[in-house]
Amino acid sequence: MTVSGQQAAPNGTATRDRLGRLFTPESVAIVGASDRSSWSHRIHGALLNIGYDGEVYFVNPRGGTAHGAVAHRSVGEIGQVPDLVYVMTSAEASLAAIDEAARLGTRSAIILSSGFAETGPEGLLAQRRLAEVAREHDMAVLGPNTLGFANPARRVVLMPMQPGDELEAGAIGVVSQSGNMAVQVMNMARSFDVGLSLLASTGNELNVTATDVLDYLVADEATQVIAVFLEAVTDPAAFRRACLRAQQAGKPVVMLKVGRSEAAARAALAHTGALVGDDAIISAVLSASGVIRVDSMEDLLTTADAFVRSGPVGGRNLAVVTISGGGCDLAADRADGLGLRYPPLGEATMGRLRELLPSYATPQNPLDATGAAVADAQLFGAAIAAVAADPAVDVTVAIGEIEHHAPESAWGLDSITAMTAAARQAPRPVIFTNTTIHTITPGARAVRHELGVPSVFGGMDRVLAAVARIADWSAAPVRAVSEPPQRPRPAGSQDSQDLPARAGTWSEADARSLLERAGVPVVPAVLARSPEEAAAAAGRFGTPVAVKVVSPDIVHKTDAGGIALNRSGREDVIAAARQVLAAAQRQVPAPRVDGILVSPMRPEGSGVHDLLVGVVRDPDWGPVLAVAMGGIWAEVLADVSRVALPCDRPAIESAVRALRGAPALLGARSLPGIDLERVVDAMVAFADLAVSLGEDLVAIEVNPLRVTADGAEALDVTVQWRPRS
Amino acid sequence: MTVSGQQAAPNGTATRDRLGRLFTPESVAIVGASDRSSWSHRIHGALLNIGYDGEVYFVNPRGGTAHGAVAHRSVGEIGQVPDLVYVMTSAEASLAAIDEAARLGTRSAIILSSGFAETGPEGLLAQRRLAEVAREHDMAVLGPNTLGFANPARRVVLMPMQPGDELEAGAIGVVSQSGNMAVQVMNMARSFDVGLSLLASTGNELNVTATDVLDYLVADEATQVIAVFLEAVTDPAAFRRACLRAQQAGKPVVMLKVGRSEAAARAALAHTGALVGDDAIISAVLSASGVIRVDSMEDLLTTADAFVRSGPVGGRNLAVVTISGGGCDLAADRADGLGLRYPPLGEATMGRLRELLPSYATPQNPLDATGAAVADAQLFGAAIAAVAADPAVDVTVAIGEIEHHAPESAWGLDSITAMTAAARQAPRPVIFTNTTIHTITPGARAVRHELGVPSVFGGMDRVLAAVARIADWSAAPVRAVSEPPQRPRPAGSQDSQDLPARAGTWSEADARSLLERAGVPVVPAVLARSPEEAAAAAGRFGTPVAVKVVSPDIVHKTDAGGIALNRSGREDVIAAARQVLAAAQRQVPAPRVDGILVSPMRPEGSGVHDLLVGVVRDPDWGPVLAVAMGGIWAEVLADVSRVALPCDRPAIESAVRALRGAPALLGARSLPGIDLERVVDAMVAFADLAVSLGEDLVAIEVNPLRVTADGAEALDVTVQWRPRS
Repeated sequence: MTVSGQQAAPNGTATRDRLGRLFTPESVAIVGASDRSSWSHRIHGALLNIGYDGEVYFVNPRGGTAHGAVAHRSVGEIGQVPDLVYVMTSAEASLAAIDEAARLGTRSAIILSSGFAETGPEGLLAQRRLAEVAREHDMAVLGPNTLGFANPARRVVLMPMQPGDELEAGAIGVVSQSGNMAVQVMNMARSFDVGLSLLASTGNELNVTATDVLDYLVADEATQVIAVFLEAVTDPAAFRRACLRAQQAGKPVVMLKVGRSEAAARAALAHTGALVGDDAIISAVLSASGVIRVDSMEDLLTTADAFVRSGPVGGRNLAVVTISGGGCDLAADRADGLGLRYPPLGEATMGRLRELLPSYATPQNPLDATGAAVADAQLFGAAIAAVAADPAVDVTVAIGEIEHHAPESAWGLDSITAMTAAARQAPRPVIFTNTTIHTITPGARAVRHELGVPSVFGGMDRVLAAVARIADWSAAPVRAVSEPPQRPRPAGSQDSQDLPARAGTWSEADARSLLERAGVPVVPAVLARSPEEAAAAAGRFGTPVAVKVVSPDIVHKTDAGGIALNRSGREDVIAAARQVLAAAQRQVPAPRVDGILVSPMRPEGSGVHDLLVGVVRDPDWGPVLAVAMGGIWAEVLADVSRVALPCDRPAIESAVRALRGAPALLGARSLPGIDLERVVDAMVAFADLAVSLGEDLVAIEVNPLRVTADGAEALDVTVQWRPRS
Repeated sequence: MTVSGQQAAPNGTATRDRLGRLFTPESVAIVGASDRSSWSHRIHGALLNIGYDGEVYFVNPRGGTAHGAVAHRSVGEIGQVPDLVYVMTSAEASLAAIDEAARLGTRSAIILSSGFAETGPEGLLAQRRLAEVAREHDMAVLGPNTLGFANPARRVVLMPMQPGDELEAGAIGVVSQSGNMAVQVMNMARSFDVGLSLLASTGNELNVTATDVLDYLVADEATQVIAVFLEAVTDPAAFRRACLRAQQAGKPVVMLKVGRSEAAARAALAHTGALVGDDAIISAVLSASGVIRVDSMEDLLTTADAFVRSGPVGGRNLAVVTISGGGCDLAADRADGLGLRYPPLGEATMGRLRELLPSYATPQNPLDATGAAVADAQLFGAAIAAVAADPAVDVTVAIGEIEHHAPESAWGLDSITAMTAAARQAPRPVIFTNTTIHTITPGARAVRHELGVPSVFGGMDRVLAAVARIADWSAAPVRAVSEPPQRPRPAGSQDSQDLPARAGTWSEADARSLLERAGVPVVPAVLARSPEEAAAAAGRFGTPVAVKVVSPDIVHKTDAGGIALNRSGREDVIAAARQVLAAAQRQVPAPRVDGILVSPMRPEGSGVHDLLVGVVRDPDWGPVLAVAMGGIWAEVLADVSRVALPCDRPAIESAVRALRGAPALLGARSLPGIDLERVVDAMVAFADLAVSLGEDLVAIEVNPLRVTADGAEALDVTVQWRPRS
């Protein structure tokens, strides 16, 4: 299903309305409320903590009181219809409570309880019954097996929250499939004074999925950036479209997707009852969907926080301003590893810095404004202003140490006001952070809020990495939500009468035909019916030849002894042909044999490289193109780039350039480089072919694709189709 | 200078005594004290904050009062001799104050003031005068250009400290050349409740160097692990010996060494006036000295904190216990990237977990003990005990969330007591951390101290990385502080009468002699005096040959056209010889030519690899052996291992195995592997030779070293010596 770039998802408005209701209830019933339940205390405490001003009802089948108020025996006994029920009873009791509330007209629910799909067949059945009830009454159900959500702007928190720092409203929307990870984000946000627009954990995703919340946040005006903790999605295509819509809306999606390792895949299975897909494919799809992928919870929140303060960043030219030589050293080393550059400052900037700084300071980038900036309230702000105004600088990170210094110590309010003004008036982004992470004093917290200091938590180590990611995101092309316009459909994509049915594997000869019709350059070859015909063909090529057995049943020809390389002379070729035929006949069960393929050997040498180019079609995530350096080195070094298909031509060129071996391909040490234009032509034709082959395709692979200064030529190809159903 | 492993450095006791006095003064005079100086306020505040119970005097040439007490006009006017003077006046006034205090008998000083060596020739002169005074009166001077030190165990802090959390005494000794980075460590330690034994910043290192403090901390009983922030050291050999002594004492040295990037090298130049050496050489030396190198301040302190809690770790087999499936996923992914393994749990452990855990939990590693652990105070501790007792597990990380949960919220004191007891009674290390970093409530801080909870700050992301580093450190061989015993001195190390003087470059023929005499296998060759002699030699080899001009003045023979490869037949060889001689004659100025080297071509093919093996001798850090994959791929991929020399044989074998291309060398995909034993033999002989050549050597390089299933053979070699002085 394809939707245009400007439209929301089908039922998008309806879904957003449902979620809007879910996240802003004016009355809440806590089902299972009890003074003896720590969960009950924590949820009730969270509502008190945030200052929820709606009605709160308690429900407990045993009646009595809970948290100092009456406990109703059922939702029906409340006498009012609550907007939302938060259910923390056993799975069976939960089902009954939801059923009752839904009949009464409650349209939103949160189910903390586990014991559903994640526990096995019985739980799955219970979850299905729950789904029926919810569908019948159009009820939005967060969970089951969720911890709930927090909506600090509307002062609703229905998620366990311990005493401590305030949760502030802000511009970061967060969705997590794991409840615990949602709580982790909440606690980091509270510890380090990061504002959130919404935080939701989706658990078993009965009828509110991470994709739904993502879509809601794309439309939510308070949200500028979206942080996602993901285990597995049930509808990858819809999820990908939601990511593309976020990109189009100018809202980065920062994502921590777990399940990279096999051990993690096992853990997720126990946790969500959903499968975790192959990580490399997911990485390619996320990358093509404009998603910023991170590896840790801290990087997730720091990257989002940095974007709220910086907005898009125009390039990788960084300036750092600090008051410490050691800080400059650290900043220089860190940026170096992240591919950020320190451009030399222009003469105007240098002149201004010489005016500002004490004589023993060195005007340069990164800049040590020296300890003099501690004594002079205006100096640090003026230095930031000078550096940030330099046209060579895309983004300035000032090691402001606001959380550490302000306002009890070194930086007075005057200093911080000057620094903040400099950041606000700068023509390009300026953000602040600390050299290292530490806690915020209440005084510093107050100053941050009062002045709107653009200070990012996490310390230089994480913040510079966040800046690099934001620069990447800002430079990425914005793709349409619809599939990119198809290039003219390659001829090979139509079934021709002379090609076999699309099932199982094809012989090399048939697979070659696919490539040829699609315009992928293929080495010439003759399909000979006998050793003598093979020898005659070899004679016509006039070079040493490769001799291969042709069979749809022999995929790994080398392993089967079905290939003889570098043969020349009539007798040698005849012997080779007999040898590969004999090898085929030794296979059990006996393979079909269509003949002998004879093709000229291509010379090796400097400037000649073997690539492997293949497309794998994941049933969920779609086709992904892999480009790899060929040969033993590629296997050892695993030098592979992956691109989700369909994609545009620059994405394929980037994949080639992203190979570690690219400098060798493109001509290192005065060796000849390949004809990149024509190589990419061949890959584009190959990728288009693979896309056009549709869902029947399992994989198609050219190995090797020989690339030289004259372009590309496929030397061998295999194709595999889904079995006939 | 070589010292035995058991001895301290020369004057080690004297130095330790000096530093012992410096770090425990019973009276302090602050010179430059003034109510109008923010520095004065901050130093005085730090003494108040920590509860210093010695005498504090204020000195200001203008007299009057400071901080509510009398300000003496000079140190002499105090009427008592302070143990230590903290000087924050101008450079000139500082010199006078130090001179006066030293004459009176003060034996320790801290000089905050800048304006010394870091500012240029004039400052350097002032610093030299200071050094003379200090030497004359045996005064230990920290700085100049330092922020001072903190000694929380003795309740002395002479370093700026803002209000806020307490600085706790602990087992981590810290030395930083940068004052600001020392303050960063102090603030992280205070924020996250990490105890320090001592924290010192050494600044310009007049007569107290980072090496001195390192040596002091090795001997200091309170210190279990040493964290170092380093910019550049003046005596690398002494520094290296101090690191080795720490390793012998069982105290890891964790180090952040800045100056990896060129930009950082520039910044350090402005900061300390000292040169930053080549980073790869330093890395090799640090690695050989048992140092754990980290990249960020947070990793520096987390790694040290983790070691205090874990001690040595017996291997890379990790168990993680958490109460969240999402946490398990994260732990699995993170460990995967760090080379930590999750061993399957044994049947006894699985049985115990099945007894303990609710039915919906899955006993596995990493373990999700589920939310049931929140309700049952004993469950989490019992699960930790079960897992940590499994013989397959080297180290257990329990995601205890003490700082987050305790004791106001989910974990009651009972839970934390049970968890801590489980950790303490476990047969192998158990440490706690949180899923993510966050602040500590005062209640949690109190519980941590009361129970001695082994909880490490930084969150799972940083703590698992710290565990991996500690496992590496624990597995590294402990090297003697003296240079390793020399193997029998290779014959080639003696100057023979037939070899030229050791200056400049040598011809390949002479360099070959060095290798041959040292027992490094070298391809056969004949030094021919004429093209005809060359042809005769080629005839005797009976294979195609390489023909090279022999000249000490032509180092890059290929670039000069001085090599002809793969020649055979009398006329072809004569032509090749004439060609390389003619190429030599075209060089300007005219090179000396010693003849023509003829050697057999060695066949290429699968199982044959070219390596590059070289030794570079850094004037400060000594000789380093580099082993690299040869050819274009090595240059593009920079696949290099480096080992500081001298080293033992296993270190060289490890260097080969550490190459990314090692699987290809050792036999991947059923291709033949090289004879590693004989290849390492050749490298050991080569390394011994290089060490024996002493300080005259600049570099010696074999390129290529051909390695096969038959061993190694040097095909070409160059050697470069220091110019004659």
